[in-house]
Amino acid sequence: MTERVYNFGAGPCTLPLPVLEEAQKEFVNFQNAGMSLLEMSHRGKEYDAVHHEAMDLSLEIFQAPSDFSVLFIQGGATLQFAMVPLNLLNDSVQAGYVLSGHWGKGALSDAQPVANAYSAWDGAESGYTRMPADSELSIEDQTRYLHITSNETIGGIRYNHWPDTGVPLVADMSSDYMSRPVDWDKFDLIYGGTQKNLGPAGMAVVFIRTKILDNTNRDIPRYLRYDLHQAKESMFNTPPVFSVYMLGKVLKWMKAQGGLQAMQEAAEKKSRILYETIDNSNGFYRSPVDPASRSLMNIVFRLPEESLEKQFLEEATRAGMVQLKGHRSVGGCRASIYNAMPIEGVKALQEFMGRFQKQHS
Amino acid sequence: MTERVYNFGAGPCTLPLPVLEEAQKEFVNFQNAGMSLLEMSHRGKEYDAVHHEAMDLSLEIFQAPSDFSVLFIQGGATLQFAMVPLNLLNDSVQAGYVLSGHWGKGALSDAQPVANAYSAWDGAESGYTRMPADSELSIEDQTRYLHITSNETIGGIRYNHWPDTGVPLVADMSSDYMSRPVDWDKFDLIYGGTQKNLGPAGMAVVFIRTKILDNTNRDIPRYLRYDLHQAKESMFNTPPVFSVYMLGKVLKWMKAQGGLQAMQEAAEKKSRILYETIDNSNGFYRSPVDPASRSLMNIVFRLPEESLEKQFLEEATRAGMVQLKGHRSVGGCRASIYNAMPIEGVKALQEFMGRFQKQHS
Repeated sequence: MTERVYNFGAGPCTLPLPVLEEAQKEFVNFQNAGMSLLEMSHRGKEYDAVHHEAMDLSLEIFQAPSDFSVLFIQGGATLQFAMVPLNLLNDSVQAGYVLSGHWGKGALSDAQPVANAYSAWDGAESGYTRMPADSELSIEDQTRYLHITSNETIGGIRYNHWPDTGVPLVADMSSDYMSRPVDWDKFDLIYGGTQKNLGPAGMAVVFIRTKILDNTNRDIPRYLRYDLHQAKESMFNTPPVFSVYMLGKVLKWMKAQGGLQAMQEAAEKKSRILYETIDNSNGFYRSPVDPASRSLMNIVFRLPEESLEKQFLEEATRAGMVQLKGHRSVGGCRASIYNAMPIEGVKALQEFMGRFQKQHS
Repeated sequence: MTERVYNFGAGPCTLPLPVLEEAQKEFVNFQNAGMSLLEMSHRGKEYDAVHHEAMDLSLEIFQAPSDFSVLFIQGGATLQFAMVPLNLLNDSVQAGYVLSGHWGKGALSDAQPVANAYSAWDGAESGYTRMPADSELSIEDQTRYLHITSNETIGGIRYNHWPDTGVPLVADMSSDYMSRPVDWDKFDLIYGGTQKNLGPAGMAVVFIRTKILDNTNRDIPRYLRYDLHQAKESMFNTPPVFSVYMLGKVLKWMKAQGGLQAMQEAAEKKSRILYETIDNSNGFYRSPVDPASRSLMNIVFRLPEESLEKQFLEEATRAGMVQLKGHRSVGGCRASIYNAMPIEGVKALQEFMGRFQKQHS
């Protein structure tokens, strides 16, 4: 039996070990029903309890106000890139998109075939190394919503404030979901894939201001309609049973850790350790992003040479710290330290970075 | 530890026990990598092997010709109801839909908001108790495809032949997927949710004639584009890793059983046992469907009175045979005997039906 490694992958990524062990234990015979949860009808009482517990915990842990609904929808954040404009826009309104990196650009490119959507800011000039100030955003007339990406997984930047622009926000929070509080008043819709902070890949969790469902589009195919998913409590069609079940387990783990506040404190503490290691390395390690926009989830850093980066990654892997390679589009190194990454993993990486620097500078 | 029950549920439904046990064993530490498969990057070598094995086995087991591609797409068959017309239709062509029951009707209702689609036949007159003869189908001009539902899960009817109409077929095979051979020449596209014959809920498997991708629509959001899923080998965005993994395991199990031929023979044998029990019951049990359209997967039957049906279901449950209730929209009883239902389960039900009849007639 190999020892468990520290997995710094950007997603799918490390999950809480107790969650995995519990799921393993009950995998074949769920609650002594003589079958696996995977084999149970989604209309039966066992799954119904699992499903509603996950819904309730989602709202509770994320501290969503009572005028928000939570939806579970397959297709990840990418399908939400399509569903948001399909449901919220029509011929008389448009949407602004903040192009803060790979994911913000993807969201706009999926909106444009189905609705009127424009770039409200493009970070190309800085190489997508910072988030915009509110004053830099161009909001046009008849803007139904401003779409932001709360944390850019690849670029390693995040909003350190929620923009205040007079139009409702829609946010893709995939890569820092439920790691900090949200100014709910500013948002009409928040979505994200589960495969970073919330569980395995296989679905998106969507929080939507319930009253806007009165005006969402209905002349689209049913799977794409928020109003139907909400009316049917995400059981309009067969839900992704295992994804919902694992989400519930991860949320229970988060609750036991102290909920959103504890996740936020841990994220601040863990990211501070790594940024201090970088900042105190006399330039051996270098963060390419604007200090004011530094992500607390995806710590991107470079070494003096690409050959050293290669060696760093190889030696880290041998030391049981894996998936530290930066995204293929940007290179370098990236430590993703999501909610489930224990502080021991971050400290082990800190020590390794110090050791490696001593050997090579 | 409760004994394993016989689960006659219509989906999610019984899975092969060896598959569940194997998945349980490797759940926390996959291939001694020090992490779960759920935590692995979908770009890593371990998952890549799992993914491509599932793709290859899908094509192999279903005996798909080399000019077909296989795609894994989240959202179940229901999202395919939207994707098929979004990709295949345009202003100058339309599609015919066979309304053979709940699912055929659903497919048409999701096509109509996005394209020109019409009913080629409606089984309402017979209460959706039979499939049409080819001569009953009305195919209009400029018909790009005829959409059929190979097996209607709720009504308990199936096509016993593949229609021959001069236009390409598109089929929803969710509830009898990979349980019989297909006349591939007649089809441009076959899809189905995994949660009956192929694994847990959470994705659809789509077989598409590769050359038609040259002419599918590209001016739609990326998640909805078949051409992109095919070009990226279903890794355009993070795939539903666990669903693909379980699909692969179920397909390996099917292969070990003897593949498609063995699945077909088992389906014929298992369904014959139950239909004979019904037909030889002197009217105590009654099949409401046309004998020529009887499903081999979902055996729908009635008892003389609703109160007897209730008692039948209660006593069957106590005897370890569960989920025999018909769909809430039609009532009665339904035994779903998918690929993973062992013949022992069917024989146990046969004996129980005989015993129950003796006690109550």
